[in-house]
Amino acid sequence: MEAAPIASLIASLAIILVAAKLGGHFAARLGQPPVLGELAGGLILGNLGLLGFPQLDYLKTDPGVDLLAQLGVILLLFQVGLESTVAQMMKVGWSSFLVATFGVIGPFILGWLVGAWLLPDESVYAHVFLGATLTATSVGITARVLKDLGKSQTDEARIILGAAVIDDVQGLVILAVVAGIIASANQGGSLSYAAIGWVLVKATIFLVGALVAGLILSRWIFRIAARLEAAGVLLATGLAFCFVFAWLGGEIGLAPIVGAFAAGLVLEDITYKPFTSRGETSLEHHIEPIASFLVPIFFVVMGVRTNLAAFVQPGVLGLAAALTVAAILGKQVCSFGVLGKGRDRLSIGLGMIPRGEVGLIFASMGLTLKVAGEPVVSGAVFSAIVVMVMVTTLITPPALKWSFSRRAT
Amino acid sequence: MEAAPIASLIASLAIILVAAKLGGHFAARLGQPPVLGELAGGLILGNLGLLGFPQLDYLKTDPGVDLLAQLGVILLLFQVGLESTVAQMMKVGWSSFLVATFGVIGPFILGWLVGAWLLPDESVYAHVFLGATLTATSVGITARVLKDLGKSQTDEARIILGAAVIDDVQGLVILAVVAGIIASANQGGSLSYAAIGWVLVKATIFLVGALVAGLILSRWIFRIAARLEAAGVLLATGLAFCFVFAWLGGEIGLAPIVGAFAAGLVLEDITYKPFTSRGETSLEHHIEPIASFLVPIFFVVMGVRTNLAAFVQPGVLGLAAALTVAAILGKQVCSFGVLGKGRDRLSIGLGMIPRGEVGLIFASMGLTLKVAGEPVVSGAVFSAIVVMVMVTTLITPPALKWSFSRRAT
Repeated sequence: MEAAPIASLIASLAIILVAAKLGGHFAARLGQPPVLGELAGGLILGNLGLLGFPQLDYLKTDPGVDLLAQLGVILLLFQVGLESTVAQMMKVGWSSFLVATFGVIGPFILGWLVGAWLLPDESVYAHVFLGATLTATSVGITARVLKDLGKSQTDEARIILGAAVIDDVQGLVILAVVAGIIASANQGGSLSYAAIGWVLVKATIFLVGALVAGLILSRWIFRIAARLEAAGVLLATGLAFCFVFAWLGGEIGLAPIVGAFAAGLVLEDITYKPFTSRGETSLEHHIEPIASFLVPIFFVVMGVRTNLAAFVQPGVLGLAAALTVAAILGKQVCSFGVLGKGRDRLSIGLGMIPRGEVGLIFASMGLTLKVAGEPVVSGAVFSAIVVMVMVTTLITPPALKWSFSRRAT
Repeated sequence: MEAAPIASLIASLAIILVAAKLGGHFAARLGQPPVLGELAGGLILGNLGLLGFPQLDYLKTDPGVDLLAQLGVILLLFQVGLESTVAQMMKVGWSSFLVATFGVIGPFILGWLVGAWLLPDESVYAHVFLGATLTATSVGITARVLKDLGKSQTDEARIILGAAVIDDVQGLVILAVVAGIIASANQGGSLSYAAIGWVLVKATIFLVGALVAGLILSRWIFRIAARLEAAGVLLATGLAFCFVFAWLGGEIGLAPIVGAFAAGLVLEDITYKPFTSRGETSLEHHIEPIASFLVPIFFVVMGVRTNLAAFVQPGVLGLAAALTVAAILGKQVCSFGVLGKGRDRLSIGLGMIPRGEVGLIFASMGLTLKVAGEPVVSGAVFSAIVVMVMVTTLITPPALKWSFSRRAT
């Protein structure tokens, strides 16, 4: 009676939510973060075809599910942005900056080398993209693991979190640069310094503009919004602010998620003081249930799109192993960025390992970026990246637990 | 760089959210409920074409926006269902039942007569559907108005709210019956008692089955779910429960919203005691921000789809006026259903007036139901129904305020 799309969508959502929570449960039982379980749950749903049940294969391409998943990842980056302020980013010391920078350079070079070594037939763009995929640290997973271990207030945690924030921005800029280079190469040109320059200028103008103008504009917008006599104005204003930034980011040629992250960074507790001072709860509090609904859809769908059959293609497991080693070793370079004495350099290097959502976002964008008609990240390479993300996510909690307890004794 | 649909969707969402809150603000300034402002905000967005700005006309048909709007209305009915329990429905006395029943019969007959009188060229199905559209009381608006007036704890309020709940179910059954009749007529047959009987049996089996099996199943499901070690399990389980019921309702031939409402009725505080007893907040609390995001999209889109140009078609304003009078007078029959002495019968009749979301849901379904290729509710009739909903929603707060204060003095 109702249009078919909504009936199909709600059935899909029920399946995805159940898979997400069952996956999260088993991940928790194994002491792993929920995101790993959501990926695994999706991986099972998306590969039931191998067992003769291809009925759920439509989830890989369903437009409604895809739309909600993309809305989920935009909200996630907004949330991650909300966790930090522009001022906090300015304050984090040289240690965070150096750790972040070394943590980008190390994996980038190693990832590029792994690509050149194991994928000699692919273009230089594919190798560069592979390097870029390894750069960003997952601030969400890192923060959650540190909190679970009760180490959030240590010097090491502050350096890791600060570096992870800087790393996210650096990684997003690298992504924009690499994607821009590929896009310009795809339009017939080759790797030109002018193109790099223009991408860098655009990215810089947008990010600096978003941060500076956003800081001023946001206070003004929220002060006006607070005068509106309607329920849910704080949430609606925050979401509209996020969506406009994300849309602007997309219009400028960057990814919408870059804009959403910038929107989150710009919003601070003081921005919505006109609301909180009259007793309303914070924006994060309102966003949380919406993210709790939509974000797992993104990770389950990422798992659904992981083709286990691709693993038997020659070279995929080898590539996955090489990428994982590059991802882990590359971040150990971070240790050299830690200034000051008595700091647990090993824990910092280990804490930078998880790639989580940002690695997956990079990988999924690689599927849609094309050079000469071919996606820059093939299905097999995507699967290898997902394995790398799963392994780096998986080893971090036990590794950090071991590393911190090693010093405690 | 990202797929175009998400960029378009987030821009649309930002516009819709701003329209919803600005509309809600001006409605509040005029002492009216937010839903009226959301409709008006959408009405302006959807009719900018009349002023030479047709750029937003795509919102009328955008599939992503439509999907989120439909998700919103499913969540709204789930929320409304959560506000009541099956036991509360059993307990509400004969007064509530009689008020509800009279409140369905009166407007149904008057609406049918108005259709037969003013739309003689349309089929008997269109007239019956028009009658059905007038039956349901909007429990959401009624509850909010009573709360705003500080009258939630009066006998009159309990009778109105109880009747509104029963009314919703009766209205939804009528909708299912009428829609089923139209669907069977559309497949070549005519109005047959067997078809009515089958629709009634299906609707009854689903509703009774959903309520009985749901009460047992839900406690069992939530008890098992509570053992899962993952964050957000209560929300995910509640949403999955709602989506499965909504999907089942759709599969059986009823509207997904009927299933969502039944799912809400079935879930009681005791169902999620395994969660709340360990300190988690209630399901309603988690659903609220998601509904606060998605529900206004439905009402703004309803406004967007209201074609102001249709009002100048001959007969639309006349039909709207006749429907509104039928809607208001029809509910005054409710007074005769109130048992006991000293009860404010006028306030109860006035409190039953608002049609709000349920009337709009009926109307929007009428747009998609077809008899012999023609929608059973034409664009002009839809506009007339929206005017009726707006007027009944608009007059209730001042009418109730006057009625209650009349007795206080």
